[in-house]
Amino acid sequence: MSDVNHEIRDGVENSFILDSQLIDQILAAIEAEDALQLTHLLEPLHSADIADLLEQISGGQRRRLLRLWKGGMEGEILSELDEGLREEVIRDLAPEVLAEAVRDLESDDVVDLVEDLDGAQQGAILQVLEDADRVVVEQSLAYPEESAGRLMQREVVMAPAHWNVGEAIDYLRAQEDLPEQFYHLILVDPKMRPTGYVTLGKLLGSPREALLREIVEDSFRTISVNQDEEDVAYAFNQYHLISAPVVDADDRLVGVITIDDAMVVLDDEHEEDIMRLAGVGEGSLTDRVIGTVKRRFPWLFVNLVTAILASLVIAQFDEIIASFVALAVLMPIVASMGGNAGTQSLTVAVRAIATKDLTSANVWRVLRREVLVGLINGVIFAVVMGLVGIFWFGIPMLGVVIGIAMVLNLVIAGLAGVVIPVWLEKLGVDPALASGAFVTTVTDVVGFFAFLGLAAVMLL
Amino acid sequence: MSDVNHEIRDGVENSFILDSQLIDQILAAIEAEDALQLTHLLEPLHSADIADLLEQISGGQRRRLLRLWKGGMEGEILSELDEGLREEVIRDLAPEVLAEAVRDLESDDVVDLVEDLDGAQQGAILQVLEDADRVVVEQSLAYPEESAGRLMQREVVMAPAHWNVGEAIDYLRAQEDLPEQFYHLILVDPKMRPTGYVTLGKLLGSPREALLREIVEDSFRTISVNQDEEDVAYAFNQYHLISAPVVDADDRLVGVITIDDAMVVLDDEHEEDIMRLAGVGEGSLTDRVIGTVKRRFPWLFVNLVTAILASLVIAQFDEIIASFVALAVLMPIVASMGGNAGTQSLTVAVRAIATKDLTSANVWRVLRREVLVGLINGVIFAVVMGLVGIFWFGIPMLGVVIGIAMVLNLVIAGLAGVVIPVWLEKLGVDPALASGAFVTTVTDVVGFFAFLGLAAVMLL
Repeated sequence: MSDVNHEIRDGVENSFILDSQLIDQILAAIEAEDALQLTHLLEPLHSADIADLLEQISGGQRRRLLRLWKGGMEGEILSELDEGLREEVIRDLAPEVLAEAVRDLESDDVVDLVEDLDGAQQGAILQVLEDADRVVVEQSLAYPEESAGRLMQREVVMAPAHWNVGEAIDYLRAQEDLPEQFYHLILVDPKMRPTGYVTLGKLLGSPREALLREIVEDSFRTISVNQDEEDVAYAFNQYHLISAPVVDADDRLVGVITIDDAMVVLDDEHEEDIMRLAGVGEGSLTDRVIGTVKRRFPWLFVNLVTAILASLVIAQFDEIIASFVALAVLMPIVASMGGNAGTQSLTVAVRAIATKDLTSANVWRVLRREVLVGLINGVIFAVVMGLVGIFWFGIPMLGVVIGIAMVLNLVIAGLAGVVIPVWLEKLGVDPALASGAFVTTVTDVVGFFAFLGLAAVMLL
Repeated sequence: MSDVNHEIRDGVENSFILDSQLIDQILAAIEAEDALQLTHLLEPLHSADIADLLEQISGGQRRRLLRLWKGGMEGEILSELDEGLREEVIRDLAPEVLAEAVRDLESDDVVDLVEDLDGAQQGAILQVLEDADRVVVEQSLAYPEESAGRLMQREVVMAPAHWNVGEAIDYLRAQEDLPEQFYHLILVDPKMRPTGYVTLGKLLGSPREALLREIVEDSFRTISVNQDEEDVAYAFNQYHLISAPVVDADDRLVGVITIDDAMVVLDDEHEEDIMRLAGVGEGSLTDRVIGTVKRRFPWLFVNLVTAILASLVIAQFDEIIASFVALAVLMPIVASMGGNAGTQSLTVAVRAIATKDLTSANVWRVLRREVLVGLINGVIFAVVMGLVGIFWFGIPMLGVVIGIAMVLNLVIAGLAGVVIPVWLEKLGVDPALASGAFVTTVTDVVGFFAFLGLAAVMLL
């Protein structure tokens, strides 16, 4: 391997991304309508990188690229694309190109590709599949969305639990079409119920006469076909599973989920949590302006309502504000500190709920900790703000008022930051989605009310 | 399998978590000092669940559990524990229990276990290892923290690239100690440089005379030993890798990273991003009050400074506030809406930077979209708030002022939400960590200044 190659490989930042130089070259090839150069540049790229490229360039560039690069479109690129873009790209593809692209995919990738398409596009793709494949895909689509049934591969490699290593190896070597990816041999009883699994490495490393049931993995777990994919991802992460058999209601083996699929789900779930915590909802970078406006509007609207609620509190104290304008100057500080402290607490609580780390065994201890943290930080910032109040405005009592309000609001922030997510979870509402608005309402209302109310009592 | 078992398995919520009933039984056994019952309850649990249990119960309960449950502590439980707790639990273990627990672990798990311990504890654990194992662990610890070198397993299964399938199978079957987990056979050239890999499934499914180099996987990628683990996780996720060879500066094979390790890193990185976006920093649910206060304080302090900055803006307009108290009532709404819209934009931008989806190819398009979204939402909320201003306070010009300020602040929020993270990334600062404070400062200052400034011009 040459030094040049070595340099490229060591460039950590560049080794895994489409760098801007390459994108520029590709765009230049599109501009020049140079199909040969375009193919030359795209050929070595992984389908995931080509999908990223299609997401990053403009709609016009994308259409011209697809027109120029006729032969290259593969099914894998389509399944890597953002859902929003996928429909658009599929619409732009010639039917015969689409057919060829889809026929190369494994059944679980076809399911992933078509499940979010509209009915007409879905039908068009199912039509080009061979009969046997179409039946498999339709069976998968019959399972609920985001269930283990949708996620699993139907191609399973299994053996009777009473076989020995030699029998298993001979059987595998005699098979005509083993799946592309498999890492375990699943043992089943005569009723097709999985009883354990053997890694291929263990199989290769064991004597022919060893019984399969003697070399099974400790960590065997089955997954119900109706299980939510979020729980599937949790199980893979928690128990370090590499693959897991999926069973139906009668405990019969119907498929297998592998860790790479679970990793995609884990990644999606995290993304969803982050976006929901920030009030962005689902959606992606390739969404259009109007779609984005529609998705963000409801959250901003909820925020407007809570902000007006806070303003109603302020309006109760208009007379004292008119006499002490310093109150108007300082009051946003109390509310803002409460909002931030509340966000800290609620984020910790929301994450702990998602990772199943916040349970009835420790909820009181966590609550006590958050309240204590709020109290201690509150006292520190009360002293700081008390001094600011005194030295800025020369009114010692103003310093006392803002100090007390700060302590109160930070304690309430810690309390609300735990109680609200836990309570939403109990009600069956995703705490990541709704906690923020509630907690901020509490800290705004408490912050303004405590500060202005105390001022009304102590300054007049 | 009985119906009862089946019921338990179908209980989606309960099948993967320590349920509160089990925790109660365990706590009762600890209370009753019933070591037999405790062992009976803990025995069937996965080490990850036992670690979760230790994290969820109180410090006193934990110490009593460890004292009662002498024989059961395993190295895997220690490596699953939160870092903060790990030191405490190790301190509480008898040296001989600790020694036995650690000896069972694979080298990469020992590295994971000891890398964050203090020097004395690290030394104590290294001492109980056998010489060969200790050398391996010490070599791994010599790589930079959070690098591929720390993450990789040193046990690699490889074969010369010129072998055929039969030679490879015979070689594997003749090996005495194959690693516990391996899924690929890595092909190397005479200088030990990896040239491709073969899945064990493909190996088992191919004729003996087939050449290994003919059945290698398409997606072969090597990872440099110094690569950041975050990039390693990205590569596994992007390219659906199951395992990847790790090479040194001379491209020689030194280890292998498997997807389960990459999944743990991906999970940690996401967690870190969420926590940083919320200003919580690292840390976990088991941290003590003082540690938590210290970790959250800096973020709240930064927020205080930005809030005071906003107050300084308000203070410039104290006279007009004294004449129109309605301004004090309404001004937090403008700032709050800007803050929320800015958080939406920055979260999308921060995530897109982390997933390498925001690049020079699309940054202008994304920026334009965010500004347009801010403009459209701004206009809608301007109308709403304009009406609120008119009907609540009966001053039409107040409605106009708040409307214009709202549009301005939401446009600026979209702008700042993209520009600030991109600019922090360029400076080498983690955008997840610092964007929030900057964006909120901008929206607070712009919000108050636009609203009060316009009021000063248009209402007087």
